[in-house]
Amino acid sequence: MHLKEYEEIKSECLNYLKKVGIQLSEKEKQNFEVADFGLGRIRKLGLQLVVYINTERYCAKELILLPRQTCPEHIHPPVNGSLGKEETFRCRKGTVYLYVEGPETKNPKAIIPDGYEAYLSVWNEVILQPGEQFTIPPNTPHWFQAGDNGAIVSEFSSTSTDENDIFIDPRINRIPVITD
Amino acid sequence: MHLKEYEEIKSECLNYLKKVGIQLSEKEKQNFEVADFGLGRIRKLGLQLVVYINTERYCAKELILLPRQTCPEHIHPPVNGSLGKEETFRCRKGTVYLYVEGPETKNPKAIIPDGYEAYLSVWNEVILQPGEQFTIPPNTPHWFQAGDNGAIVSEFSSTSTDENDIFIDPRINRIPVITD
Repeated sequence: MHLKEYEEIKSECLNYLKKVGIQLSEKEKQNFEVADFGLGRIRKLGLQLVVYINTERYCAKELILLPRQTCPEHIHPPVNGSLGKEETFRCRKGTVYLYVEGPETKNPKAIIPDGYEAYLSVWNEVILQPGEQFTIPPNTPHWFQAGDNGAIVSEFSSTSTDENDIFIDPRINRIPVITD
Repeated sequence: MHLKEYEEIKSECLNYLKKVGIQLSEKEKQNFEVADFGLGRIRKLGLQLVVYINTERYCAKELILLPRQTCPEHIHPPVNGSLGKEETFRCRKGTVYLYVEGPETKNPKAIIPDGYEAYLSVWNEVILQPGEQFTIPPNTPHWFQAGDNGAIVSEFSSTSTDENDIFIDPRINRIPVITD
């Protein structure tokens, strides 16, 4: 991703957080993460996040999604003999369409980015409105998309090791590279 | 605590959460916890909370403090051979005066409830404003008080077992009893 795009997206997200009264420290603003997964389509396929805390026992993040932005399908596999990451998504603002293993939902609400159907395999839809949450078991596939107005999601979880995530889309590089 | 008092305090806290845009599910509202620790002085010594999630690996809660309300000093001891609870307090609204082990702070900001000095042993002050946070190691004493306008604190932690907490004040009963 180019630095200009990173700055643009970051600025939009910080404004969104400010508007809804979620405050960040200066250090958190500096470390604000914009992940395009190396796909180069950040407004369609991407995710923005702030890591509040990530210890050897637990983790908490704020996830910020642009309108209709999709976080691609992935799993959190076992790491170093421990179970994979278990995580709870709590919707704070907006609407989240979350897809997990289970019976396929007919007429799902997500709008699939052009050509991306091949990289989405689970279609059991969970709709989260503010105040609603869902816990995703370790080592199970999931992906999600924000509704028309974007979304803010508090993620509570066991320890996070993003670099170990396994994405269905083999082109994905989870750790973002920002160029001038 | 009498049911009427529980309902009053609960209503105040739900209004506070609503005012600042933190939404709860109906079930969370029903299970809203008001802890007077058996001391019968809820507006001075007490804590209100919503448990969002508490699995075998992590826990997340929202803590709501009335103006100048104090959560009494306690530790989270080891349980069943695991380390005690490790927790991160993230201030969302208001001001929190947190006291932990370390050099005693001269002229601390907390206003001590009458006669309660004897039950407070740690005086290293950490002041948390919205967007600021602090992580409390397992098995270490801590207590906290809200500023003049109350406070809302997101707590991220390892698994919570409140019934194992050890309070300095021997009169305390952590699990609240509500009577008609």
